[in-house]
Amino acid sequence: MRKSLLLTASCILMALGLRAQIPALERVEPMSWWTGMSNPNLQLLVHGNNIASRQVQLSYPGVKLVAVHKVENSNYLFIDFKLFSAAVPGTFPIKFVKKGEKDLTYNYTLKVRDHSANRAQGVTNKDLIYLLMPDRFSNGDPSNDVVKGMRETGLHRDSMYSRHGGDIQGLMNHLDYLKDLGVTTVWMTPEIENDEPHASYHGYAVTDYYKIDPRYGTNELYKQYVEKCHAMGLKVIKDLVHNHIGTESYLIQDMPMKSWVHQWPKYTNSNFRDMAVMDPHGSALDKKIMLDGWFDHRMADLNEGNPYVQNYLTQNHIWWVEYAGIDGFRLDTYPYNDAAYMAKWAQDVKREFPRLSIFGETLVWSAANQAFFVQGDRVNRGFDTHLPGVTDGVVKDAIMEALNGKEGWTDGVARLYAVLAQDFLYEDPTRNTIFLDNHDMSRFLSVVNDDYNKYKSGMAMLMTLRGVPQMYYGDEILMKGISNPDGLVRADFSGGWKEDKDNKFTAAGRSKEENDAFNYVRTLANYRKNTPALQTGKLMQFIPQKGIYVYFRYDDGKTVMVVYNSNEKEESTTTDYFAERIKGAKKAKSVITGETVNLDKLTIPGKSTLVLELLPSTK
Amino acid sequence: MRKSLLLTASCILMALGLRAQIPALERVEPMSWWTGMSNPNLQLLVHGNNIASRQVQLSYPGVKLVAVHKVENSNYLFIDFKLFSAAVPGTFPIKFVKKGEKDLTYNYTLKVRDHSANRAQGVTNKDLIYLLMPDRFSNGDPSNDVVKGMRETGLHRDSMYSRHGGDIQGLMNHLDYLKDLGVTTVWMTPEIENDEPHASYHGYAVTDYYKIDPRYGTNELYKQYVEKCHAMGLKVIKDLVHNHIGTESYLIQDMPMKSWVHQWPKYTNSNFRDMAVMDPHGSALDKKIMLDGWFDHRMADLNEGNPYVQNYLTQNHIWWVEYAGIDGFRLDTYPYNDAAYMAKWAQDVKREFPRLSIFGETLVWSAANQAFFVQGDRVNRGFDTHLPGVTDGVVKDAIMEALNGKEGWTDGVARLYAVLAQDFLYEDPTRNTIFLDNHDMSRFLSVVNDDYNKYKSGMAMLMTLRGVPQMYYGDEILMKGISNPDGLVRADFSGGWKEDKDNKFTAAGRSKEENDAFNYVRTLANYRKNTPALQTGKLMQFIPQKGIYVYFRYDDGKTVMVVYNSNEKEESTTTDYFAERIKGAKKAKSVITGETVNLDKLTIPGKSTLVLELLPSTK
Repeated sequence: MRKSLLLTASCILMALGLRAQIPALERVEPMSWWTGMSNPNLQLLVHGNNIASRQVQLSYPGVKLVAVHKVENSNYLFIDFKLFSAAVPGTFPIKFVKKGEKDLTYNYTLKVRDHSANRAQGVTNKDLIYLLMPDRFSNGDPSNDVVKGMRETGLHRDSMYSRHGGDIQGLMNHLDYLKDLGVTTVWMTPEIENDEPHASYHGYAVTDYYKIDPRYGTNELYKQYVEKCHAMGLKVIKDLVHNHIGTESYLIQDMPMKSWVHQWPKYTNSNFRDMAVMDPHGSALDKKIMLDGWFDHRMADLNEGNPYVQNYLTQNHIWWVEYAGIDGFRLDTYPYNDAAYMAKWAQDVKREFPRLSIFGETLVWSAANQAFFVQGDRVNRGFDTHLPGVTDGVVKDAIMEALNGKEGWTDGVARLYAVLAQDFLYEDPTRNTIFLDNHDMSRFLSVVNDDYNKYKSGMAMLMTLRGVPQMYYGDEILMKGISNPDGLVRADFSGGWKEDKDNKFTAAGRSKEENDAFNYVRTLANYRKNTPALQTGKLMQFIPQKGIYVYFRYDDGKTVMVVYNSNEKEESTTTDYFAERIKGAKKAKSVITGETVNLDKLTIPGKSTLVLELLPSTK
Repeated sequence: MRKSLLLTASCILMALGLRAQIPALERVEPMSWWTGMSNPNLQLLVHGNNIASRQVQLSYPGVKLVAVHKVENSNYLFIDFKLFSAAVPGTFPIKFVKKGEKDLTYNYTLKVRDHSANRAQGVTNKDLIYLLMPDRFSNGDPSNDVVKGMRETGLHRDSMYSRHGGDIQGLMNHLDYLKDLGVTTVWMTPEIENDEPHASYHGYAVTDYYKIDPRYGTNELYKQYVEKCHAMGLKVIKDLVHNHIGTESYLIQDMPMKSWVHQWPKYTNSNFRDMAVMDPHGSALDKKIMLDGWFDHRMADLNEGNPYVQNYLTQNHIWWVEYAGIDGFRLDTYPYNDAAYMAKWAQDVKREFPRLSIFGETLVWSAANQAFFVQGDRVNRGFDTHLPGVTDGVVKDAIMEALNGKEGWTDGVARLYAVLAQDFLYEDPTRNTIFLDNHDMSRFLSVVNDDYNKYKSGMAMLMTLRGVPQMYYGDEILMKGISNPDGLVRADFSGGWKEDKDNKFTAAGRSKEENDAFNYVRTLANYRKNTPALQTGKLMQFIPQKGIYVYFRYDDGKTVMVVYNSNEKEESTTTDYFAERIKGAKKAKSVITGETVNLDKLTIPGKSTLVLELLPSTK
């Protein structure tokens, strides 16, 4: 999430009401709403030059004007509505009147909710998520590469921090590739407007919450993209940022009130320490700096304790789901948020969309630290976050240790065993998203030092361990990169641009090695897709012995046995110790090769993994 | 706890009823009991040649014979009594009769309970525990050095695995030394009989639960020792072993029943993995081997699921407290025990002695793993262990990392910060025992590579962090030793034997360096003893900054500021960041040197620690 651009916060402190050049009625947000929502309340934010000097008038059956709030900045009004069941879909004028001046009118539309079964479906352990950065995946519409009037207009594919031109159309053009790979869910890093002067491809410095970044497409295209995904049996995750806001947003350039963001006498960075949030011995100052300090100079820390901010964000997120039919949310920088608000937020969202899934980004130290943020109040926090799951960075680190480390009591492959044994800490660990890498860290293949056996073992674990697996774009074609400088892990997917020499979306465009990796991942992903035991089946793991780690995923239908040899050299193992799960099986089918394997004795090359479907015993 | 002597378990499996040469009535246990216990039930174990062929008779007001149980081995009877409030202290005969044979009689005594205030007091964070091995501390009674008829008769001070002759009288002779040092509580490794052929000094292979090892003294002397401690204002902890029993015990040599211990087709070691107990994905086999596998060939794994074993152990422990007035229990190898029994045990014990303290040995991976074993069911175990606290090995490891490691996000001193931040996992972390070393690991001074600054910093942390501090004998006089081979950390306290060249119990017998260390520890320990803020005061810690870690202990009366510089070089820090706790204080007194320090700026030598008592602001 981090950027390092210089801008002092002092401009923020002075920003109230300075932009008098805005139109008399610049915007109303949410721009539209729906009848039949569980929550009857709606708060409109109205922005316009000295709009607070006007009276608000409206008349529509079932819509009651409850209150009009004036705030510090007279360019804003916050209007509270109540929508009764009598309200039918339709459009009605909201008038802003002032004696001696012409009336201003906004035609507000209430639409019918769309309860189609393939909307807001939720992403679960039945799915496989593919994470990508829209600027870096495929350029499907060169006409939006450069958009006039936006602060960053250059397009420089040779610069990791500039824009490369990827867009939603490009992604839409390659959904068949993802579908074929075995992916079931797409997670784009934020695709809403980031009208920042530099590194605007990044996505986490939002400048317009209700607008797809024009360089990616339009709101309507985004909706079409979700609908196309749904039609193809794919799901969509939207990446939300509650914690901060891009400093170029109108909400910062012309702030409703000083308390819209956390203000500091001088610029103050977050200390980035999740411990400061959970520490019963922690100082108030450390905690305040963690929560209220800024993530970056260009990312103002939203004051989530401010009820106007709360309504604004929650409604925006609900708006997008109902507008586009999104299936799940990924929440950026979860530990930095206001806990009470986030718990309320999750309940408010789930009330409207009960199946919608939510997971929070928690790059923290240990399973206990992760569990602190998860719903159910299972680790003595004394507070229920209502967050179903997290990005399981601790399992990710443990997989890397299992691949790269030397076996010890809790080192090497024993770390992975030990971490999974801590699953007692969660209400439901299968709601955690597991992954090998993402846009904020070195790519998996680089972390395992280009060792292809380790690569294949990690991929096998990703596809067979508990939780919701998430891949990072291009890992399936052996893309590499080290995170520092972080741009290098955000390279373009070759073939996503017409001018690219190789089109790695096709077998012909991939090298032999890339095809081998692609086919390996594809085989596993599609096997997982068709094997409920790997989705919702139980996990049973055994204590690693002599560097060999054995676990099972199983349900009434099937048992899949995974055997990882963490040693450098080939090793063999008998399987009598695992009789509890092997039961009477004598043979198994290799999921990768299709070969039948005799279970009496298994031989596993160094750093390699067998994925075996047990075959019914035929006596 | 580990020894490596060879004996196959096959002899155990065959041991039932083979020792027909025992007397007709060899023993009754507990040998005596008390009126006025909360639990009215009492189960006597009777051992004698073919005792099961006899009828049991008794008649005493208020004592009801409820049942007589015959078991597999006819050399045993288990007799259930109920003691009503009508039972008065006194002695009555229990007769074992058989037609045609002479009656056997055991005169059973019911005593008055002793409710004196200084008995069973509990050991809390107000205390400082001194752990010692009785064979290695001081030989106060050479007459018991070699006891005829015991399996290990040699006394070889030059062999770490042989007996050295230390005893309870030797400890009693040096209580003044401990008192002067600032210790408030003595914890001896087990002092009850270990009649083992080798390494019997070790203590964890019990052969007689009701008998102080004759080489340490007698039951009566042990009682006098506790009374002397209490008279001096010291407390006593007894070290209990629930999990295993010495294979030379009569209970193993002539077992009541095969199910007295966990039997295996062939000798099976525990896998020593606490994870196997907590893992929701764990295999039944791994868990069974963890819990029921043997700790060692000479330590049979007691079947704590056997109600006779349960009654036998629980009554024995209660017997010792009421007999001698012991203040607290340390429970060996806690995770290896039967959880349900241990929870019941703790409640049974606390019902008789509500103030008695209990902590369990848990040398496990992380704070979450420790918390799994602690009472209150705070980490989603779904089961309340009723164990108040544990040996906090995770804090110990974190202190070592803070002293030896290089600062990183969670490395070096940041580890200690991060571990303490996980205290949310416990019902009450201040019940945990914190320590720098013990008899099963390398001595602290060796772990910090003889670095005296680190030594002093570690001692300062031990005396000022939260929890119940525990020292290991001789650390105060710079004793060293590496745990592997483990004997080297169990060296004799020089001066504990008349023939010793130097008597380090006295200043004259200590070197300059040893006196410096002794005085350092003594100063801190006595300061702690007189400073409630360091005992029951709250802890506040700050995120380490540039390797400098600052925390406070405070209550309404005092605030103690501790500043540890983890850098190799001297560093300075201002203190304005800590205003939250420093409040208006301008000056502080160094607890070690007595000097007054100006709080504006603190300078701390590399790897050193300031312990500062804040002085009231005088405006």
